[in-house]
Amino acid sequence: MLTVVGICDTEKVTTLPFTRPVCIIGLGLIGGSLLRSLVSKQVPAYGFNRSPSGTRAGVKEGFDISSDLEATLKRAESDNALIVLATPMPAINTLLGALATYAPHCGFTDVVSVKSEVYAMVRAHGLVDKYVGGHPMAGTAQSGWGASIDGLFQSAAWVVTFDHAVDHTPSTQWLELWRDVAAMASTVGAEVIPCRVAQHDAAVARISHLPHVLAETLAIVGDNGGALSLSLAAGSFRDGTRVAGTAPSLVRAMCETNAPALLNAVDEAISILEDTRAHLTGSKPNIEELVDSGYRSRIRFEARSGMHSSESVSPLKISSRPVFRVHPGAPGWVNQLIQAENLGARIEVF
Amino acid sequence: MLTVVGICDTEKVTTLPFTRPVCIIGLGLIGGSLLRSLVSKQVPAYGFNRSPSGTRAGVKEGFDISSDLEATLKRAESDNALIVLATPMPAINTLLGALATYAPHCGFTDVVSVKSEVYAMVRAHGLVDKYVGGHPMAGTAQSGWGASIDGLFQSAAWVVTFDHAVDHTPSTQWLELWRDVAAMASTVGAEVIPCRVAQHDAAVARISHLPHVLAETLAIVGDNGGALSLSLAAGSFRDGTRVAGTAPSLVRAMCETNAPALLNAVDEAISILEDTRAHLTGSKPNIEELVDSGYRSRIRFEARSGMHSSESVSPLKISSRPVFRVHPGAPGWVNQLIQAENLGARIEVF
Repeated sequence: MLTVVGICDTEKVTTLPFTRPVCIIGLGLIGGSLLRSLVSKQVPAYGFNRSPSGTRAGVKEGFDISSDLEATLKRAESDNALIVLATPMPAINTLLGALATYAPHCGFTDVVSVKSEVYAMVRAHGLVDKYVGGHPMAGTAQSGWGASIDGLFQSAAWVVTFDHAVDHTPSTQWLELWRDVAAMASTVGAEVIPCRVAQHDAAVARISHLPHVLAETLAIVGDNGGALSLSLAAGSFRDGTRVAGTAPSLVRAMCETNAPALLNAVDEAISILEDTRAHLTGSKPNIEELVDSGYRSRIRFEARSGMHSSESVSPLKISSRPVFRVHPGAPGWVNQLIQAENLGARIEVF
Repeated sequence: MLTVVGICDTEKVTTLPFTRPVCIIGLGLIGGSLLRSLVSKQVPAYGFNRSPSGTRAGVKEGFDISSDLEATLKRAESDNALIVLATPMPAINTLLGALATYAPHCGFTDVVSVKSEVYAMVRAHGLVDKYVGGHPMAGTAQSGWGASIDGLFQSAAWVVTFDHAVDHTPSTQWLELWRDVAAMASTVGAEVIPCRVAQHDAAVARISHLPHVLAETLAIVGDNGGALSLSLAAGSFRDGTRVAGTAPSLVRAMCETNAPALLNAVDEAISILEDTRAHLTGSKPNIEELVDSGYRSRIRFEARSGMHSSESVSPLKISSRPVFRVHPGAPGWVNQLIQAENLGARIEVF
């Protein structure tokens, strides 16, 4: 049942056919890119955009977009669409209420970058058997429909959560939903990483939210040096502060809703900086421990992250992630997912 | 005497003709790129490379390179070359001794990324009237002759120090040397930023050394999250840890020799992170202060750093730095330099 395929074989990616209609609520960078990517793969997809100007722009490009939420959700209910909540966190709770009212039989997923808080809301609305969490690890500093592109998710990690299957014996409908969410992510070129909400939130605190906090910090300390510092700043400062250019509301939504996990990551960073401080003081400053350890960590990341794939001269995109082949609901499948989660492995659903 | 030219006029850069021979000691990324860039501008330039294989590679490409330090310095003495010390910090002290022995009449500069410690060594060797410090803010994660390229310094900031003119009335020879160092930097396309050694070291601690410390820190905290964290890491982690991939010996040489200034920067960072920690704790996490302030700082950097020039659709490279026109030795020129330093302005020498 369990197959771990080596790197050499991962180019033969088999993708489940995915033809279920997809209804996307919120057509910003992520939702808009998902709509474009699905349509370009011939998946019947349509969506709702709150902004009338965004709706007009999308319709003008030939996309099936409405600015009537109730009508869009009713349509999803009538054609049994997979609903994707692609709004920022603050809108989710209201949307869950609308979903329960207008599309009570539809399964749904989301793309919010923090998973524990969304899961708590879903639980509060009594919708756990209709929900599979998702988080595509893709994005740019831009936002909105205008920034959306076909291909945004190509080779990106797409987390799909499975807590419900650990805590309960899920229904056949939920297993199908889980399969569909994974298949949708694969269809747009993403690599599906199974992950429970707490593990997801701890990981993204380290590799997504802490980078934002450190980028803001670096930007401030550089700016404190005045015009001379900003004038001399070059590549290392530019790269180190890039994500400080993200819209403040987005950064706050991510970090503040993942505060407990982010606190742990910030504390680790402070502790490393305090050690470094101590090693810089005195007559023989020596930060070998920091620099050697940081260098090894970066090299390990380069090897593990799949970043070589995009830099390879080969036209073939090869993932550096191990792969598990998983059949939702088969005996032991939850243990497979937990193993994959531990390894940061991607899965293929069959 | 003082002219500040607005952004619109800065495209008309006038460069002093520079034809003095240049002798470069050390042909790694910076020294090698300088040799290539000078030769492509028809400046007579030659160099010394400790590595026989590097020397052979350069000679094969047609460059005038020797692996005999003594002979190279004697040649510089005989043709009154401008000597550029382009080795890492640990070699500088020995080279100053060799310089005093074999090229006692030559003026020289350096490209080391920390300026106070080099200046102290120069002072100890009694060479202050022959020395003008330099620091081109250019580089890649690569090192060595093989990584060197013509054009590396195009639009980069090139710091030229002037402490000697503040502390003493410099000789005519030193004023000519200062002019030549600035002219050489302009010749290879760099923007000359005048700066004293202490101000330089305080600024680079913020915008070059702290970015390295934070990148190492982020790499370690990410890695501590294990395989799952590394697998989910995407753009923000990749950019935030990029310079952690720099050779550890180079990072240590920079940071450890600038420990006092770096300590201040690290302390500011720790204090911001402690505040952030406090704002993440409690029932209503709120990091508005950090995020708004970091965002404004980043936007200010984008405006001031000249980064728009390279991203501009215009084929014309326009610097966003103000410019001062300076004549070395003219009345008030040192005050002009101090003003330029305060503004992070570039200068044109006439």
